[in-house]
Amino acid sequence: MINSKVETLGPCTIKNPAGYEYYTKEDSIVLFQNYFENVGHMEETLKDPILFEQSGPFEKIFFDPAETTAGIVTCGGLCPGINDVIRAIFMELTYRYQVKKVLGFRYGYEGLVEKFGHKPMELHHDRVINIHREGGSILSSSRGNQDPVEMVDFLVKNEIKILFCIGGDGTLRGAKSIQEEVKKRGLKIAVVGIPKTIDNDINMVHKTFGFSTAFAKAIDAISSAYVESKGAPNGIGLVKLMGRHSGFIAANAALASKQVNFVLIPEQDFDLEGPGGFLEVLKERILRRKSAVIIVAEGAGQKFVETKDKDASGNKKLGDIGTFLKKEITDYFSKQGIPTNLKYIDPSYIIRSVPANAEDSVFCGFLAQNAVHAAMAGKTGMVVGTWNNVFTNIPIDLAVAERKVLRPEKSYLWRAVLSSTGQPNSLKAKS
Amino acid sequence: MINSKVETLGPCTIKNPAGYEYYTKEDSIVLFQNYFENVGHMEETLKDPILFEQSGPFEKIFFDPAETTAGIVTCGGLCPGINDVIRAIFMELTYRYQVKKVLGFRYGYEGLVEKFGHKPMELHHDRVINIHREGGSILSSSRGNQDPVEMVDFLVKNEIKILFCIGGDGTLRGAKSIQEEVKKRGLKIAVVGIPKTIDNDINMVHKTFGFSTAFAKAIDAISSAYVESKGAPNGIGLVKLMGRHSGFIAANAALASKQVNFVLIPEQDFDLEGPGGFLEVLKERILRRKSAVIIVAEGAGQKFVETKDKDASGNKKLGDIGTFLKKEITDYFSKQGIPTNLKYIDPSYIIRSVPANAEDSVFCGFLAQNAVHAAMAGKTGMVVGTWNNVFTNIPIDLAVAERKVLRPEKSYLWRAVLSSTGQPNSLKAKS
Amino acid sequence: MINSKVETLGPCTIKNPAGYEYYTKEDSIVLFQNYFENVGHMEETLKDPILFEQSGPFEKIFFDPAETTAGIVTCGGLCPGINDVIRAIFMELTYRYQVKKVLGFRYGYEGLVEKFGHKPMELHHDRVINIHREGGSILSSSRGNQDPVEMVDFLVKNEIKILFCIGGDGTLRGAKSIQEEVKKRGLKIAVVGIPKTIDNDINMVHKTFGFSTAFAKAIDAISSAYVESKGAPNGIGLVKLMGRHSGFIAANAALASKQVNFVLIPEQDFDLEGPGGFLEVLKERILRRKSAVIIVAEGAGQKFVETKDKDASGNKKLGDIGTFLKKEITDYFSKQGIPTNLKYIDPSYIIRSVPANAEDSVFCGFLAQNAVHAAMAGKTGMVVGTWNNVFTNIPIDLAVAERKVLRPEKSYLWRAVLSSTGQPNSLKAKS
Amino acid sequence: MINSKVETLGPCTIKNPAGYEYYTKEDSIVLFQNYFENVGHMEETLKDPILFEQSGPFEKIFFDPAETTAGIVTCGGLCPGINDVIRAIFMELTYRYQVKKVLGFRYGYEGLVEKFGHKPMELHHDRVINIHREGGSILSSSRGNQDPVEMVDFLVKNEIKILFCIGGDGTLRGAKSIQEEVKKRGLKIAVVGIPKTIDNDINMVHKTFGFSTAFAKAIDAISSAYVESKGAPNGIGLVKLMGRHSGFIAANAALASKQVNFVLIPEQDFDLEGPGGFLEVLKERILRRKSAVIIVAEGAGQKFVETKDKDASGNKKLGDIGTFLKKEITDYFSKQGIPTNLKYIDPSYIIRSVPANAEDSVFCGFLAQNAVHAAMAGKTGMVVGTWNNVFTNIPIDLAVAERKVLRPEKSYLWRAVLSSTGQPNSLKAKS
Repeated sequence: MINSKVETLGPCTIKNPAGYEYYTKEDSIVLFQNYFENVGHMEETLKDPILFEQSGPFEKIFFDPAETTAGIVTCGGLCPGINDVIRAIFMELTYRYQVKKVLGFRYGYEGLVEKFGHKPMELHHDRVINIHREGGSILSSSRGNQDPVEMVDFLVKNEIKILFCIGGDGTLRGAKSIQEEVKKRGLKIAVVGIPKTIDNDINMVHKTFGFSTAFAKAIDAISSAYVESKGAPNGIGLVKLMGRHSGFIAANAALASKQVNFVLIPEQDFDLEGPGGFLEVLKERILRRKSAVIIVAEGAGQKFVETKDKDASGNKKLGDIGTFLKKEITDYFSKQGIPTNLKYIDPSYIIRSVPANAEDSVFCGFLAQNAVHAAMAGKTGMVVGTWNNVFTNIPIDLAVAERKVLRPEKSYLWRAVLSSTGQPNSLKAKS
Repeated sequence: MINSKVETLGPCTIKNPAGYEYYTKEDSIVLFQNYFENVGHMEETLKDPILFEQSGPFEKIFFDPAETTAGIVTCGGLCPGINDVIRAIFMELTYRYQVKKVLGFRYGYEGLVEKFGHKPMELHHDRVINIHREGGSILSSSRGNQDPVEMVDFLVKNEIKILFCIGGDGTLRGAKSIQEEVKKRGLKIAVVGIPKTIDNDINMVHKTFGFSTAFAKAIDAISSAYVESKGAPNGIGLVKLMGRHSGFIAANAALASKQVNFVLIPEQDFDLEGPGGFLEVLKERILRRKSAVIIVAEGAGQKFVETKDKDASGNKKLGDIGTFLKKEITDYFSKQGIPTNLKYIDPSYIIRSVPANAEDSVFCGFLAQNAVHAAMAGKTGMVVGTWNNVFTNIPIDLAVAERKVLRPEKSYLWRAVLSSTGQPNSLKAKS
Repeated sequence: MINSKVETLGPCTIKNPAGYEYYTKEDSIVLFQNYFENVGHMEETLKDPILFEQSGPFEKIFFDPAETTAGIVTCGGLCPGINDVIRAIFMELTYRYQVKKVLGFRYGYEGLVEKFGHKPMELHHDRVINIHREGGSILSSSRGNQDPVEMVDFLVKNEIKILFCIGGDGTLRGAKSIQEEVKKRGLKIAVVGIPKTIDNDINMVHKTFGFSTAFAKAIDAISSAYVESKGAPNGIGLVKLMGRHSGFIAANAALASKQVNFVLIPEQDFDLEGPGGFLEVLKERILRRKSAVIIVAEGAGQKFVETKDKDASGNKKLGDIGTFLKKEITDYFSKQGIPTNLKYIDPSYIIRSVPANAEDSVFCGFLAQNAVHAAMAGKTGMVVGTWNNVFTNIPIDLAVAERKVLRPEKSYLWRAVLSSTGQPNSLKAKS
Repeated sequence: MINSKVETLGPCTIKNPAGYEYYTKEDSIVLFQNYFENVGHMEETLKDPILFEQSGPFEKIFFDPAETTAGIVTCGGLCPGINDVIRAIFMELTYRYQVKKVLGFRYGYEGLVEKFGHKPMELHHDRVINIHREGGSILSSSRGNQDPVEMVDFLVKNEIKILFCIGGDGTLRGAKSIQEEVKKRGLKIAVVGIPKTIDNDINMVHKTFGFSTAFAKAIDAISSAYVESKGAPNGIGLVKLMGRHSGFIAANAALASKQVNFVLIPEQDFDLEGPGGFLEVLKERILRRKSAVIIVAEGAGQKFVETKDKDASGNKKLGDIGTFLKKEITDYFSKQGIPTNLKYIDPSYIIRSVPANAEDSVFCGFLAQNAVHAAMAGKTGMVVGTWNNVFTNIPIDLAVAERKVLRPEKSYLWRAVLSSTGQPNSLKAKS
């Protein structure tokens, strides 16, 4: 009945050595119901339901721990919690499953390609015991994929049976290509992803790690913008936050700080000029209240700043909406003869490099343990996700099929943002 | 089809003035499925399902905002986020629903009884705008219930149409008794609760506010215990955390800090003496590793310290397991001739009095807004809860029927704690 | 014997109502000895010594509190601790000296000029009691001076007897011009400055408020830069910190964080190109260690980015050395064929807008109390400073005569920076 | 002319390899003038002045780095900054002075006694690079002295030339006894102390490390006490802070938090009962304001709780004034028929185990570097101190001769506390 089943390398025949008192049943399922929005009738929900496989330890496993070497690789930009995930993978593998050897590949997928010369780091207890207190990745990272053939060669050479790939969209596609190469060669190597996107935009995954920390940490920058906006005549605090395709960080940061008057997100088009456009609405606010705080997600308003460049990960490079808005706002008020004091803050690196907060730290532990459970059971080509507070095993293909976005027209999150900021439902110019 | 429907004061006939683009459908439901544990088969889930009413703004409301005065009361011990809830109730009532007057009753239910002489505080924008940055309750609190007759008299005298009660178990029972008195008199006063329990132990409610902040803040104390345990020969750090009936704070704090070796919770019996009992297992750890960190939930091991006293809220007074354990451990090692350095930390007041963290701050906003939506629609005798990331309206009776607890024998949370601490599945002495 | 005596409005004849058990003696002095550098012989120190007047409450005062209205104005950029100073001035004036009325002028010196229409805010206990928990200035601020004639007119109109000016260099010059206008008219109005410079660059003042908070807060940005530098191949973290003329924040932040490899300050010239120049030394580091963290004070390397603009406060606008270096470094390594990952962080607004830390909060209290003591004793045209842990009254002229800078060639602070970073004594190119 | 000269092991004949551009002159002095109180006349100051030796690197040193092994030991209770000191000693010794081997002795002076079997830990770069981010001591600590004969035997056996002792009063006396044993045997081993007392009570030393962090961290507990005091009818927040003999932490924490109504310190006697006694004054406050916050230093009011016990360090065990006051206050109000809600917080372990704040972290670096400079120059039987922002070398005998205390009758610190709290000058009962 599970209609999003993940692949496995073969039947599980080995008794799980983890010593748990209870295990996940093979056919345990999680019902998908889009809870960000109106929930709807029971009948609707149960018409063609999407059912996920539940994560967890299984009574029988595929790999013999005594003969299993696992590897971990971290790719893409930094995100709070990477070290928590590395630590928990290591701990679960070695303490529960008695796996003897865990390698950390350095500098992302570069570390899986011989020619770059990055030697894998063998992990051990003392090295990882306190890494959750540090931001970043002890393995370092890099952007961009590498040739799957070369990478699988390297895995074979290092006798890797399980590869954990911690990374975003691009990384997961890379993981999929590794898995396909593995399959082509008929190898028994499991490839399991732990989705890393600070933007929280993975399809059919309720929450990704680092997201809670990110919007919490963003409050510092917003507070500063608020204080600055109050500290000078017609003060404007403008903060650019992460969010390439989705406004989740921007929205949650606004709700948490409660000091924001405008939130601009990728999912909602807006105009600058004209009646009802952003600048005019901002002007009204400034004249009425003498200060304003604005959050702009990095992917918002791309129609104004479009570029054609791509980064090493293959993502389209975003135009810099932050400095663009800074200039547009300043120019607009200047033309209007209204003196303003705009302070622009871009806290991205300060946010993404902090250690995970408590919420994320617990969450990373679960993700990592479930990734280990799945991998040891021979599941492959999958990522660990979460839905309705249960952890799920999802095929990579499904996870990268499209991006999760906030739907302004029916999301209760966005409704709360409008309520909190007082901004109008639309910032499109009225013709 | 909703089998946990809440009471209403009458039909909703007034157009909602909040100006939202979309509203919650009256019959929108949330399916209860116990996600802390194994999820099970779809068939099981759908056999006699429990379905909750979804919270949210309705297109038609019961109360005419122009003629509605609302009141807020906060009862019981402090908890992070109370001010967030007060603020959001006020904001939603006045900015969205255009309610003109919101009173804050001082010092819990005392503030609803004439003879105590606590004058209600009329809330206004400048008074509440930044209170989410402060811990505690701007209304103050008190323990214990008061006579519902006197309280309803006071509500009538102050022309209150809606009463929001922020408090725990006892408070919600008090709210229920007010609602019953209101009903007896045939009055149209809505009584809506926002459950406040830092322990996160409300029945059929996934998460209560303040809980996320609490286990996050507990990490400070655990880190200190850890550092102290490493700072002297055979150092033992012992931390008592909140958790009268449930070990959720203890378990999550242990998972977040990753520096804990033993977690003792109310839900799991343990012995001190004998083979396999706590003291012996602790001794093995100390001899092997020279230090240990222990978390004990305040409600754990009550068989050792039982009392018969009750506090003003009518809760049974717990025996002090923290100082008891401190003494027992010290004596035990002393008898064994093993010098130890035990440091005992009880951070309860430091934890419960901090402002809400970002996660809770967002969450409190949703709870409060949904409480307002429900109340304006004339719903009464209910609390706002949350299940699977949707907000729900639940009858008070259901919410206080029993306590949510962690089930060690099948909870994946507890399984993770065992994995993280390395403590044995059981600390019962083997006979 | 005090050779830096401040002016007074006249003899003190009124008994101090503050009720202190002991008072400062009129002729109590503080010996100036430049303790940032080698201290030298006693004989040197006592040859032509500079002696300051000690601050503190005097037994007799000049102003009759019952007839005194005081005003406070905050000018220039934000700085941690302004609200602490405002609060403590208010508290000391009203609780100790029984002054009845204290006005806060809004938006800097604009608030002292009728035509801007900023109404003064009358301060009271409830308004100021918790403002030390907020960053910024509850009075707001603005840049630039105003016409002293108009400002003195406004003081007279508002019956101000004492004006406290919280601000930097330019503000203090403005205060001096007000005092001169006051004197010209034969008025008895005291003008007392509390020097505000986050850069800690006031002449003959050991420490200014906000400085301790600033370098402490800078650590967050440095940590992020460090984590980023470790998170990618050849990572470079570049952080721009405050410090227009002096490198005190940069130096202390480097010493506190211990994660910095290069500190560039205004007081020390450096070259980019050539052997021994910055880029070459950086390249050696990158090739050897694969990562580097650089702090650049905003006033460093101005020879590369000089501008001729001035800001509203009359300060020369600095060229943007941060983005300049970012580009130069990136281009240099690109030309050398060495792939690098540079992350640039400019945390200035995030730093200056936070509340004062504990150290500064205590310090601000002392500064403010001493400003009140001096003002009530009729002292004028002065600022409150500190030397060797004693508070001093210093003529404005002396305080603004030149800027305090770090002297790399003999400062023990700089010596410690070289020791901590391992950077060479000089980054000048060797010819 | 320096009248507090420290001992040396012999003439300095070796060129300092540290490569500094400038060195401290041998006869550079620091003038002692008691700046906590009224400064007084120049003539007084220069009559029989106390002059300290200035710390710093000297051009010639005593020990040949190539043949020098140094050892570090940390004793007594934990204190923020110990790891900073260890790190900076290691870094200065190895990077600047090229010393090849640095040993860390484990568990205090136990680690210098063969029979305890604690193997010394050889320090290296990777082990110490980030330890300043952790509280506690990586070497661990213990209380109490050991036999100097056995300790010197161990030093000789390990070929230690320099021993750094980080600890308080008792530790420094222990260091002195080691130095005397060394001298008796005619050995050339330098013994240099870095005074560690969180209480900041070392004679003729302006500030000790950890103190700034301690009173800053204490604010958390005070804020909680404040919030609790406001959260219930007649709320009383009672906080016990460190301070065995001196009230510096209590006083500074009160000034920093600005939320305290009473500060009780060891240096000022007070009565409980009777007119003008503490309980009566507290009652007046409670009746007038309905809440109060009290800080009590652990050494205050010992006349009420005296004990005769001593701890392992030989310090007299203090009676527990905190729980005593808790009971006395509760009983008193109960007898008076006034319901109160007292919340008692003892945050000592939470405070002392945190990492150093920025201020302390910088300070620890200077202390450690100067300790290394002194030791390498063959100075011995001394501690590194600070006066008027210069670092000093002081004979151990002078440092432990008496304790630095706050003098309520003439301290400007205490005057500010009275001003901030509003408490009366005396809490002695009037007869």
